[in-house]
Parts: sequence; structure tokens; C-alpha cells
Amino acid sequence: MRYRDAGVDITRGDAVKDAIATAVRATWGPAVRPLPGGFAGVMEWPDGPALLAATLDGVGTKLHLALEAGRVDDAAADLVYHGADDLLVHGARPLAFLDYVAQSRLDAAVIESVVRGLARACAEVGAALLGGETAEMPDTYLPGVVDVAGCMLGTVTPGGLLGVSGARPGDRLLGLASAGLHTNGYSLARRVLSGSGLELNDRLPGGDGENVGDALLAPHRWYGPALMPMIEQGRVRALAHVTGGGIAGNLARVLPEGARASVDPRAWPRPAVFRWLIESGGIPEDDARRAFNLGIGMIVVCAADEAPLLQIDLERAGERIWHLGEVASGARGVVWSE
Amino acid sequence: MRYRDAGVDITRGDAVKDAIATAVRATWGPAVRPLPGGFAGVMEWPDGPALLAATLDGVGTKLHLALEAGRVDDAAADLVYHGADDLLVHGARPLAFLDYVAQSRLDAAVIESVVRGLARACAEVGAALLGGETAEMPDTYLPGVVDVAGCMLGTVTPGGLLGVSGARPGDRLLGLASAGLHTNGYSLARRVLSGSGLELNDRLPGGDGENVGDALLAPHRWYGPALMPMIEQGRVRALAHVTGGGIAGNLARVLPEGARASVDPRAWPRPAVFRWLIESGGIPEDDARRAFNLGIGMIVVCAADEAPLLQIDLERAGERIWHLGEVASGARGVVWSE
Repeated sequence: MRYRDAGVDITRGDAVKDAIATAVRATWGPAVRPLPGGFAGVMEWPDGPALLAATLDGVGTKLHLALEAGRVDDAAADLVYHGADDLLVHGARPLAFLDYVAQSRLDAAVIESVVRGLARACAEVGAALLGGETAEMPDTYLPGVVDVAGCMLGTVTPGGLLGVSGARPGDRLLGLASAGLHTNGYSLARRVLSGSGLELNDRLPGGDGENVGDALLAPHRWYGPALMPMIEQGRVRALAHVTGGGIAGNLARVLPEGARASVDPRAWPRPAVFRWLIESGGIPEDDARRAFNLGIGMIVVCAADEAPLLQIDLERAGERIWHLGEVASGARGVVWSE
Repeated sequence: MRYRDAGVDITRGDAVKDAIATAVRATWGPAVRPLPGGFAGVMEWPDGPALLAATLDGVGTKLHLALEAGRVDDAAADLVYHGADDLLVHGARPLAFLDYVAQSRLDAAVIESVVRGLARACAEVGAALLGGETAEMPDTYLPGVVDVAGCMLGTVTPGGLLGVSGARPGDRLLGLASAGLHTNGYSLARRVLSGSGLELNDRLPGGDGENVGDALLAPHRWYGPALMPMIEQGRVRALAHVTGGGIAGNLARVLPEGARASVDPRAWPRPAVFRWLIESGGIPEDDARRAFNLGIGMIVVCAADEAPLLQIDLERAGERIWHLGEVASGARGVVWSE
């Protein structure tokens, strides 16, 4: 099964993005700090030195599995972690979150579960749940499902801003373990699941006893507690949040011209859930690498002489770390060092 | 046809809102300024005096009519005006906007049209289009439609903040003309349209020659240019943005305990589009008052001795103004002075 077969065409999405960029940039005054490929928008605040950072995203199709498993609160929480991690890429701290929850018919139990999950995660990342909207639109949404999107706002000092071109030739790449699929690749994963003959309550093949539902719905990890101190100490050159597009797609976003990153796909153990999805679904390796984080949720780019101690400190903070590769001179992009 | 028949149950929506309020408030630290019933969330900014104001909303079912008429850009722009007007209620100026655009299958022409409309309106209200997300979810959205939501961010000085309890007994109510339905009541309006035998290109019954589509899709007005100077001069006690819930529902949100507003429904001419909707759909008057703005898009609460000059100044700024009624002592709420 190819990624495109699951109903998501990344190339088409990219073409749309290019077409609208011009209209969007026309609204940017001098206050906006352009971050091409950035994970959040950053602009000056009218009367203070701190910059405003903001990002908006949806949970996506993880919600379907979460509804089936009665865990829609967890999937909603994932959206908050996702947004907080997107801000973290630019060194920003969460400040506030606003949500949009829409259904064909409002189901009070679902809405309450969503907001409880959002509120729990907001408290965890330090964001006030400042507003939101519930929308009932029978002619827009399919019956029985829910969509959840949200806007995460944060702040970063001008000196603490991590841009998208901090990586330099010679830098090292440290990968931080993900907890599972996080918030991407679920259109494909659901297709694999439905063709696998397995149910959410079945044991995950090749796993340590966890069931398929727990493996697929593992929460999106929030890397702020471990990474924010390292960012503030100036030990991080750039971060890549591994979301849609996978390791290479997101790492490429934070490489400047003339910087080429090489990533060794054998550098870390591939978690059982990804092995099962790839084998059960017959997913080509290229597609798997674009659709899934494959076990790496965040990538730290740091100076070579910083890497050993940074690894120790991140492990002390509870992270699992692997040396994924390094940055060299070359055409901008990411190569796999097979 | 009652409002509920059109697929929207306001009472149910309110019950959900109450249930989730506790979870939401638990995320509010001391930085959040509680504005019960407010049109936006307001909180302190970490390192400056200016406050952050934010609101998130969806376009709603106006999008269906806009798609049919090939004017989805206009409906997207309406979302920006809507958010900017919500901020205006609290004296805040637009700073940035982030959008969420979702479809069953991404249609590049629709997405481009949406973003062009958003960008045009953002430029008009002075907001940078700082970020956004396009989502393709075949198992969530019905084919051929689009949903658009967005988060409007702004700033307000602590001294310029308009709260939700500025109205006092003796105050006057000035109504500012809407351009049409703005962004509310479209579930009901679409039901009326489909039962009326009329098409978007047909002449509006009782109108001045405009067609039904132009009348129904008239853009949401942005009241900032006229009202912001009056707010900054301290001449406005409170504002009510007439959105879902109508004149009474939204005016009630900005009344303190002990303040009772009376509104004369004959104080302004009811525009042809509302007369047609009510007659053609057999909509009971109570339902029409809850679903539609009926020709009043924003209500200014001001001191009695301020009202005459404020009316003149707002008319000079291009607004059409009517004296709707006044605020008296009494049980908090809005009554119609029939």
C-alpha cells in the first residue's frame, strides 16, 4: 500500500501551499519575522521585546481511532503537545491555546471529552485554554465523527529565537524517541489496520504485550521540559519536529543553503508498531519514511563538540537519544546513509 | 420553520458550553482576565503592558452558499471581519490571523480562493496572516464542501480594555447597520432558500433589484474604522457584536447584574432579505430574533448625554445608526419593548 492510496497526496498539498504563499506574504508588515519552512509564525509584539509565536493545526485522522477506542480526550491532548512542540522548534514557550471542535451533530460527551483532554494538556505545557468554538454542521461533516483544530500561542525573546537556518556543516544530529506515531500517518495506519484483520484490542505483533490500540494511540510527546533548558543555554542550533513528511521532510526544513544532512536509518531501533504497519501493509520503505516518524519525534542539531554532553543531559532529563548522523557541506537536503 | 428544524439546537450548544467551562477555567493562571460571556479571551502578555486578545471561530454554513455562488473568497474574508469585530468588542486591535481549511479532498482552486479572501481581509483589518493549515480528511468531511476556521489575535492596552459589564442604568443603545446576515443564521437561511423555489440568481422579493445570492452573501462588516476612535476617546461603555443568538442574546452578554436593556424592534427598518426569509420560511418572530441580526450588526452602549454626538460622529464615519433603546435597573437581561 502506497501513501497515496490511503487518500493523502502530499505532493498535491505542497502545490497548493506554493500557490497561496504570495497572497499570505502580502499581509506581512515589517513586524513579521519570515521563517521559510518554519514550524510556527513569529512576529514582533507591539510594545515589548518578546516575540509572538503562533501555530495552528488539526489533530487529523487519529481522531477516528480515538473515537473508536473511547479515547478522544487523549487525541485532543495530542494537538496541544503537537502545537507546543512546533513552538519549541523556535525556542518559544506556550502561553495560550484556542480550539475549534466541529461535528455533524454536537455530541455533548464527545465535546466534553475533547475539552477535558485539551485542558489537561494545556495545564501540562503551561498554556491557558483561552477560547474556542464548537460548530454543528450537518451538511459539512460526516455523521459520528469529530474534527478538532487549535491555535497555540507562545512567546520567545529575540535572543532566544531559533530560526530555520541554524545548522552548519559539521553539526551532529541527535534524535529523541517518539512515543509512537504521534499525530501523523494515521490515514495510512488506519488503512493498514482495516486490512490486517486485527482489532484495537488485539495484541500488537512483535510488541511487548501492548495491544494495537495502545500502540497506535500513544500520546504525542511534549519535549519542552527536556529541551527548553538546553535551548536557553544556547546548546541547540536548530530543532526539527518530526511531523507530516517524516524525518527527512522535517529535517530539511531547518537546513540552510549549502547544508546537507545525512541520516543513518539503522541508528535507532525501529519500534514494533512501525515494523508491524510496514510489514502488514506492505508499505514501501520510501513511503514509510515520508508518512511516519519511525521512532524519532524530535531532532536536535548541535555542534559536534556539544553532542556528547547534550546527550547525557537529555538522557538525565528522561529522553532516549540516538546519534542519527551529521550535517556536511553540499546541496541543501537530507540523504539517507544506507 | 423553527430554528431547531434547520439542524441547529442553540440550547444544546449552551449546555455543552456550561459543562466544559470548569475544565477550561482550571487552565487559567492569574494572567487571564476573566470575561464571562466575552467575545474574545484576554490575558496579560509576559513582558509588556499591552494585553493579548484572541478569538477563534468558523465561517459556518455560509460557506455552502458561497461555494454554490463561486464566492468562497468572500465567505473566508467574512471570518476575518467576524474575528476582528469580536476583538473590537473588547477594544483590541487585530494583529495576526491563523487559518484552518479542511476538505474531504483538497481542491486547489477552493483553497486558493479561501486564502486569497483571508489575505485580502487581513490586509484590510491590519492583521498578518501568520500561519495556517490545510487538512485533507476523506473520512471526516462530506465531498465537495470546505470548512474554514481561524484564530484572530490582537492587542489592547489595559486602560483601553472594554469589559463585559460597562453598561449602566440610564445608558443608551445605538445600533449600527449590518450588511446582511453577516456570518450567522445560514443553516436556517439555506433551508428557507431550498424551500422557496428561488435560486441565487433570482431577484430578491421586496428588494431593490439585488439578487438573492448577493443579499445572502453580503460581506460581514468590519466596524473598526468607525468605532476604534470612539473607543479610544472613552465614549463607548460596551459593545455587543450581533452574532449567533441575535440582538438580545449578544446584548445580554455585556450587561452587568442589575442592568436590564430594552430594545424596540420597530426602531430600525428591517432589511428586505430578513423580511423575505421570515415570510418565505414561515419563521416565528422569536426564532428570527435568535437566528438573525435583523439588520443590526453591532450595538454601542453609551452614556445618555453622549448618544447624540456619538451618533453624529459614527454617521460621519459612514455608519447607519439607530437608537434601539436604553438600559434600566432590573434583572439582568434584554426585553423587547413591543
